[in-house]
Amino acid sequence: MDSKSKLIEELLQRNIIVKEYYFDLPYLRFKDDYKKYKRGTVILEGNIIIPSYPKIARIFVLEEGIKKHFRESFFIEEKADGYNIRVVKNKGEIYGITRGGFICPFTTDRLRDLADFDNFFEQYPHYVICGEVVGPNNPYMELYPPYVKEDIAFFAFDIFDLEEERFLLPEDKYRILKETGIPSVNVYGNFGPDMIEAIKELILELNQKEIEGVVFKSSTKSRKAYKYSTPIINIKDIEADAELLLDLPGQFFTQRILRFILSVIELNIPVSEEIKLKIGKAFIDEFRKCVKKFYMKGKVTREYTLYFNSVDNIYEFLKLEKRASTHVKIELKSIEKSGDKYKVKLEKVFLDSTSKLKRITGGNVLYD
Amino acid sequence: MDSKSKLIEELLQRNIIVKEYYFDLPYLRFKDDYKKYKRGTVILEGNIIIPSYPKIARIFVLEEGIKKHFRESFFIEEKADGYNIRVVKNKGEIYGITRGGFICPFTTDRLRDLADFDNFFEQYPHYVICGEVVGPNNPYMELYPPYVKEDIAFFAFDIFDLEEERFLLPEDKYRILKETGIPSVNVYGNFGPDMIEAIKELILELNQKEIEGVVFKSSTKSRKAYKYSTPIINIKDIEADAELLLDLPGQFFTQRILRFILSVIELNIPVSEEIKLKIGKAFIDEFRKCVKKFYMKGKVTREYTLYFNSVDNIYEFLKLEKRASTHVKIELKSIEKSGDKYKVKLEKVFLDSTSKLKRITGGNVLYD
Repeated sequence: MDSKSKLIEELLQRNIIVKEYYFDLPYLRFKDDYKKYKRGTVILEGNIIIPSYPKIARIFVLEEGIKKHFRESFFIEEKADGYNIRVVKNKGEIYGITRGGFICPFTTDRLRDLADFDNFFEQYPHYVICGEVVGPNNPYMELYPPYVKEDIAFFAFDIFDLEEERFLLPEDKYRILKETGIPSVNVYGNFGPDMIEAIKELILELNQKEIEGVVFKSSTKSRKAYKYSTPIINIKDIEADAELLLDLPGQFFTQRILRFILSVIELNIPVSEEIKLKIGKAFIDEFRKCVKKFYMKGKVTREYTLYFNSVDNIYEFLKLEKRASTHVKIELKSIEKSGDKYKVKLEKVFLDSTSKLKRITGGNVLYD
Repeated sequence: MDSKSKLIEELLQRNIIVKEYYFDLPYLRFKDDYKKYKRGTVILEGNIIIPSYPKIARIFVLEEGIKKHFRESFFIEEKADGYNIRVVKNKGEIYGITRGGFICPFTTDRLRDLADFDNFFEQYPHYVICGEVVGPNNPYMELYPPYVKEDIAFFAFDIFDLEEERFLLPEDKYRILKETGIPSVNVYGNFGPDMIEAIKELILELNQKEIEGVVFKSSTKSRKAYKYSTPIINIKDIEADAELLLDLPGQFFTQRILRFILSVIELNIPVSEEIKLKIGKAFIDEFRKCVKKFYMKGKVTREYTLYFNSVDNIYEFLKLEKRASTHVKIELKSIEKSGDKYKVKLEKVFLDSTSKLKRITGGNVLYD
């Protein structure tokens, strides 16, 4: 046994790595950090290590944030609102891996519809494409960019070189994505730390368009990135998720108020009564909807519609969801043929909200 | 050394008990729970143990909550919005002890203005009066009941018998408070678990008057109490404290939304646009006020005005606050004579808000 295999054996025993399956394909997933391997790292057959997608640091104020972190120039890319996927090719097959390190049967099923990944991996077999799956018909995220009106789309934002163990620099990445026809997230150009006014203009424009935010990526340093949210997305996040008040940490909401206020102050955006009313309506109307649903059905739920190519992947997806989350129970409502796809309706039962409401509406007490 | 003294010695060593002083009066304070002694328990000279004031369980729905917890009748008392104080007499002096177990120099200074405690303790030296200090000129709480327009007032809600180690039953307590002239919190009468409609009527009326809430206390069981908030107080709490968004756990806000929604549904109260706008304004306008203040002064602060009888207690109070909180720094702004009192202006600096804003407006990042 080589030293890599020995380490894997040890980490399996310590429950830092767990064994997973996608159908009969076994793979290993880091459920916790271990040294340079972070949670979400995946080991595919042949001991190929797919590193986790790194967390991106958030800045709250543009001027001070950019001046503090950049002396060199940087590209500004759209932070598209969806879920993060690493696309890899392993033994002839293409897989989509979630942030948490699961091969996602839904994403994997749909990748072939979203870009010509086969063509990409023929040329670049040792690369990983990191990108966002966005659109209304996805199983994970409530919000999606205004320009994706139906189903899902894929936009790449990073390429990782497995041999050199580093992300490509932005310009190399843009060139390769263009050559191979893999759709890229929007790129708003190259900026310098002295171009704060132009950057503010850009953010104001994106705010108007209700784009989630941007990522600043160094032109010259391979893994140097900072994210920033448009003001409006914070309000939209609150609206989208106030219904799940009891499933989310309270900080989810207060952090968004914080980001919103800092950005409207810096960008000098007046806050209309309409926006304030939206916040109130989110907390009152959306959360009341949750409680009323609970009183009607005895559970807090949301419905999702997904499109799949293969029935097998539907059941594999349900199996994974069952295993992957202790907070959400997913239930299949219906499958019907729709063109060349299967249209699948799912219900997510939010177990934390449901059990909290069950307890307190049953007369149980809390101490506060 | 007797066994009590031995235990005290051991708990001092384990840092469960700490030694405190009010001027040169030493006393011991439980900073953590130890068996039946909860945090806030105080030991006065002569090893007299003043138990902590127990936490009161909250019910979120009246009907299910009352039916689940009461078979016997109960009194409904006002839950006055202020801070909890245990009033004790020790070696000829009367002291006010906070929930956390500190002899509060402010409260102790002012007790003589709030009721004739001397008279009470002459008759009942082995009793502790538990009550609420309410009113705009208090150092701890932002909100106060609508019927206390200035300074502070004291309303008793419990009497603890140190010899029998139990709370008096409501009717005994009401009688003694009446006889001794100690002001009581409002008592709304005796109810049974079958009187849900009358109770709802009462809550609707208190909601109109913007009273904080009620406590249900068993007529026959000495320590059986449940609290319930009026809907409106949740909105007022959010309005009062959104400015301190970064000092409070996010749950502070989401819990209040939860309580509000459950109570307006049960009480069938329509929620006006005005209320929703109030919530939005709280989060936007109040918190923006905080950030703007920070940009102006470099710190997040609030001003308080208190009235004291003695200058010594002012400095003793400042000394205590300095020691008691790592989250708030209190600064004396001015002392001036006002009638027979000293009018004291204080500034509280909220250290968590201040340091968080300092970091992120300086361009520092967070990972989320």
